[in-house]
Amino acid sequence: MAMVCLSDFEAYAKKYLPKIAWDFFAAGADDCSTRDENILAYKRIRFRPRMLRDVSIMDIRTKLLGTEISFPVGIAPTGFHQLAWPEGEKSTARAAKAMNTCYIISTYSTCTLEEISAAAPGGLQWFQLYIHRNRAVSQKLVQRAEALGFQGLVLTADLPYTGKRRDDVRNGFRLPPHMKLKNLEEAFEVCKMSLLDPSVTWNDIYWLRSLTHLPIIIKGILTKEDAELAVRHGVQGIIVSNHGGRQLDGGPATIDALVEVVEAVQGRVEVYLDGGIRKGSDILKALALGAKCVFIGRPALWGLAYKGEEGLQDVLRILQDEFRLSMALAGCASVSEIGRHLVQFSKL
Amino acid sequence: MAMVCLSDFEAYAKKYLPKIAWDFFAAGADDCSTRDENILAYKRIRFRPRMLRDVSIMDIRTKLLGTEISFPVGIAPTGFHQLAWPEGEKSTARAAKAMNTCYIISTYSTCTLEEISAAAPGGLQWFQLYIHRNRAVSQKLVQRAEALGFQGLVLTADLPYTGKRRDDVRNGFRLPPHMKLKNLEEAFEVCKMSLLDPSVTWNDIYWLRSLTHLPIIIKGILTKEDAELAVRHGVQGIIVSNHGGRQLDGGPATIDALVEVVEAVQGRVEVYLDGGIRKGSDILKALALGAKCVFIGRPALWGLAYKGEEGLQDVLRILQDEFRLSMALAGCASVSEIGRHLVQFSKL
Amino acid sequence: MAMVCLSDFEAYAKKYLPKIAWDFFAAGADDCSTRDENILAYKRIRFRPRMLRDVSIMDIRTKLLGTEISFPVGIAPTGFHQLAWPEGEKSTARAAKAMNTCYIISTYSTCTLEEISAAAPGGLQWFQLYIHRNRAVSQKLVQRAEALGFQGLVLTADLPYTGKRRDDVRNGFRLPPHMKLKNLEEAFEVCKMSLLDPSVTWNDIYWLRSLTHLPIIIKGILTKEDAELAVRHGVQGIIVSNHGGRQLDGGPATIDALVEVVEAVQGRVEVYLDGGIRKGSDILKALALGAKCVFIGRPALWGLAYKGEEGLQDVLRILQDEFRLSMALAGCASVSEIGRHLVQFSKL
Amino acid sequence: MAMVCLSDFEAYAKKYLPKIAWDFFAAGADDCSTRDENILAYKRIRFRPRMLRDVSIMDIRTKLLGTEISFPVGIAPTGFHQLAWPEGEKSTARAAKAMNTCYIISTYSTCTLEEISAAAPGGLQWFQLYIHRNRAVSQKLVQRAEALGFQGLVLTADLPYTGKRRDDVRNGFRLPPHMKLKNLEEAFEVCKMSLLDPSVTWNDIYWLRSLTHLPIIIKGILTKEDAELAVRHGVQGIIVSNHGGRQLDGGPATIDALVEVVEAVQGRVEVYLDGGIRKGSDILKALALGAKCVFIGRPALWGLAYKGEEGLQDVLRILQDEFRLSMALAGCASVSEIGRHLVQFSKL
Repeated sequence: MAMVCLSDFEAYAKKYLPKIAWDFFAAGADDCSTRDENILAYKRIRFRPRMLRDVSIMDIRTKLLGTEISFPVGIAPTGFHQLAWPEGEKSTARAAKAMNTCYIISTYSTCTLEEISAAAPGGLQWFQLYIHRNRAVSQKLVQRAEALGFQGLVLTADLPYTGKRRDDVRNGFRLPPHMKLKNLEEAFEVCKMSLLDPSVTWNDIYWLRSLTHLPIIIKGILTKEDAELAVRHGVQGIIVSNHGGRQLDGGPATIDALVEVVEAVQGRVEVYLDGGIRKGSDILKALALGAKCVFIGRPALWGLAYKGEEGLQDVLRILQDEFRLSMALAGCASVSEIGRHLVQFSKL
Repeated sequence: MAMVCLSDFEAYAKKYLPKIAWDFFAAGADDCSTRDENILAYKRIRFRPRMLRDVSIMDIRTKLLGTEISFPVGIAPTGFHQLAWPEGEKSTARAAKAMNTCYIISTYSTCTLEEISAAAPGGLQWFQLYIHRNRAVSQKLVQRAEALGFQGLVLTADLPYTGKRRDDVRNGFRLPPHMKLKNLEEAFEVCKMSLLDPSVTWNDIYWLRSLTHLPIIIKGILTKEDAELAVRHGVQGIIVSNHGGRQLDGGPATIDALVEVVEAVQGRVEVYLDGGIRKGSDILKALALGAKCVFIGRPALWGLAYKGEEGLQDVLRILQDEFRLSMALAGCASVSEIGRHLVQFSKL
Repeated sequence: MAMVCLSDFEAYAKKYLPKIAWDFFAAGADDCSTRDENILAYKRIRFRPRMLRDVSIMDIRTKLLGTEISFPVGIAPTGFHQLAWPEGEKSTARAAKAMNTCYIISTYSTCTLEEISAAAPGGLQWFQLYIHRNRAVSQKLVQRAEALGFQGLVLTADLPYTGKRRDDVRNGFRLPPHMKLKNLEEAFEVCKMSLLDPSVTWNDIYWLRSLTHLPIIIKGILTKEDAELAVRHGVQGIIVSNHGGRQLDGGPATIDALVEVVEAVQGRVEVYLDGGIRKGSDILKALALGAKCVFIGRPALWGLAYKGEEGLQDVLRILQDEFRLSMALAGCASVSEIGRHLVQFSKL
Repeated sequence: MAMVCLSDFEAYAKKYLPKIAWDFFAAGADDCSTRDENILAYKRIRFRPRMLRDVSIMDIRTKLLGTEISFPVGIAPTGFHQLAWPEGEKSTARAAKAMNTCYIISTYSTCTLEEISAAAPGGLQWFQLYIHRNRAVSQKLVQRAEALGFQGLVLTADLPYTGKRRDDVRNGFRLPPHMKLKNLEEAFEVCKMSLLDPSVTWNDIYWLRSLTHLPIIIKGILTKEDAELAVRHGVQGIIVSNHGGRQLDGGPATIDALVEVVEAVQGRVEVYLDGGIRKGSDILKALALGAKCVFIGRPALWGLAYKGEEGLQDVLRILQDEFRLSMALAGCASVSEIGRHLVQFSKL
């Protein structure tokens, strides 16, 4: 079977992963309408491609908060990578480093931060944080991440409670006994998501700020109002995200929400996006609408499920090739030439 | 089979109810386009969820004309509950009381008002009325309801004649011999719907008003013009309803009509809605667009069909949990924080 | 099999008619997109139904150019009724008379005008005309029709050439040897549609006017420009029609075109519509948008195919009942209460 | 099997061509959304047909840069005709000449320019050019074309690199050993598309201009900005094209892009279109929106696959008949009567 595009990896993962793992990764909240909208929304955006521009030398590099990456695609934080591949997040870290891009490690990783960091020394890694009811747990995680050389702290804002994913309820989803939430096991005998703190507010950004010198990126923003609040509370970046459609069903597709967030932010901080990226032209559309970089969630897991580190590199390489080609065919030789003029919203 | 969401109850009812009963409950008029629109219309409404708001303490209670209920979902008036469960409306009344919400008993119930009232003493019950050609019949019903402690009178305005439901015609639908329209049998040997009075006009509101001290709620309003008339004629509440799509096919989805009714009413009376509520986020959308409360019709019957009183409680509990979760994920800790800013209409 | 709605008759006809006849009646031009749009367009129109209006006495009668009919649905001109039922147009005429409505007899009938007229003496009949290259043929037809007591002359404007109906080409459609175009056999050995005159222009209305005292109704108008020309050339009525989608594929649905035609005509002549009427609420929508009456084509043929005169009466009776019910449920007790306020176009 | 419309030829080709050849011709980039949009977009355009205009004498001829053709449909440049029919481009040339229309020969033809020219002496032929890294190769091709009597030079602007066509990758598509890119074999042992020059810019139009007296037509323009640049750089014609959806997936349908290009050009040069033409009414829509002529790509290949020269003539004759009929039914007797008033965009 030739792996030509990301759908091939999806089909592979669906076929070979245990159903309970596939269902967990694929799950969306309720009717999955937001999960599916994340993808459909790209189809309503049309390019306005420009011709006869010199695209013989293509430069697809960009920078994340000043650090160069090979192209504007990073790995979004997703949990439980050992469900996809035995080496779990260590493989993910190696692939991200090999491809010279950013990997956002989830609080719910099945390897320790130390293991992940050691697997890819010098790689660009950010740490994703949920704030726990016991703030000391979170504080300790942040300090471990900073000590290990992680270069960014991503606060997830859209999970005061876990969304209702019907298949997970039906399957009675839980981690197999031999897997652990390694970063939390010191703190709890049994990790329960209900230990997350639903009382977190914008003021907690100041608390986080007091704990660390790392840049703080907030993930889960979908409105201009919250984008404005994020900027005012001093974050360095915003990830427009609906948690892959796994939290509030009925929310907007991220590519649609991106427009109002970018407009509100007016360049004061970097804006990223995750959700629905399935091919190179999706990346180009997101950048045209103002994203500095996008992050992939499920496609990274499909890559892992295929061949671990190697499979994820395949996924990233395909996206890289497709992105470079889309840029060239749209008439852009470097990321700096991508702009709002490149796309229009179809009335359909 | 795990009962995770309302569709599970629907599937159960479709499988286990006699076809003729299922068809009767499921029926819409003509092509069922309004029935189906009631559901589809919710998919065109997108949330604008807000993040990092303290949602640790959730308050989902509301008040119906001053009486507190546990959450903004009541039981809409539907007929013939014994078709779904042997104890019929008595089970419905018990479930509504157990869940501390409002139950609107239909004129076409298969238990007497006295039986229903006795089944759930102290429960919040409203009585739904059709005006009969013989006004004395209706007058007597109203007075019985008031005497029994019912707290509201719901006048159905959209059934001067019964809509054309093709399956019912094909099935030759009629009640099985052992079931009766208990509230009407004193008055008629054979109950015929054609005994309903198609000459009812707004002036009859004054007549009703003269019969009872109960608040009058009018059900079946779909336009701003009629909403204005309702307010002017002194009703206490409006239920935006298209009778579950069973009357005029081609009318608007109730969630669409809600917008213009709420705008016309300007807070002068409470506005409710029924039709198409299938999950917690639908409730949130309706409240965001100005409904004080919603009522469920078919889902209540599916609950009854599953396990009577217990099944209906399951349905209500699921909606309650989903509604609370949707509110939290949208950033609202109490019903009073829900507002128009929370939603936008998708152009699709 | 219960015949509950028009789709039942369609299914019957599809099952029992010879394929070549079914295909001929069902045919649309090219991809059949206009044929199908005629029906789909009704689904995008939503009622704004009004409640609590006295609908105890319903009056669904209307007048066509001064002559009362029992309800605003007539029989559109379609050819070759013997393909559907042995007695052909004679049965159609009897059914139309029995139901007290108007029947527009096609030039391409398989009975003579004399036979049709004699089958339903005193019935309201209009004659549909194509203008032949040999004007004497057309003149003679007009004069026969007038002499026989036909009360209107319908000039079809949209068939300078016959549309391309793929199935008819594939089937090599032609009339069976025992059927004849009875009104034309005196004039031609073999009737060829190519004898129609593609050079007809608006000036030919004056020529027609000079031949007859009958009111002239023009059929096939789809734009405001042509509606204006029709009025200026002195016609008494306009039928908004796209020939059932059998001529130019890609033209508008008639219910959509009706809006601009009615607006242009400003009440100076009566405006009718054919195409896509499948249930009572479709009639109500057409009247709300300004049609004085609608005409049914294929549904009449399905009725004939079912049981001849009786079957067509069944079809008309169903439409009558559905129309009356739709009116009542929308709050209109008589045709004069139907107006533009009753509908809105959905954005979908 | 009757060949009634172009879909019949498509079905034939799909059935009888080797899968690898069918896939190559059918291929679109990525998800094929632009390829499919090319066709779907026509369905959103509605005619406003005019009645009672003398259409007895139909004139469907037009001129391409002053040269008369029998109707406004030419053959778009596509490669590798021998994959469809043994005689390849020689058959195409003969069919085009027989039907008195224009054939744009692709750089990637499997016959030499000399063979193609000799096959249809006196036929109207344009030569399609890709600019190679080795400009001498391109220069020589241009000069050969001019010497052979070709009457136009079509510069393809949208292929700095080849689009990603998944099926071709999966199939490992390459020409069978007995076929050759005949026009390039002198220059290269192995033809590689990567020999195309991705550094071409608008200035190269001046270089081309210096090589030849032929009119230059630029193919692949999709925006008003590029249309303006094309005019300013002195081209004689613009083909609005997205390369049949084979290059940048997510670009606009050509019929949609046509509108803005025509508006920008304001009649200063001729504007043509390719992509999605499948029936006569599509041609009429394109002309109504300002195209002087359209070109067919895949349908020409289906015709070849069916019966070579004869099959392609069949395809052209069907389009001719359908176009003439559509014009007549829309009320246009000659191409000069076609205009913007004839169409409107549906809101769907």
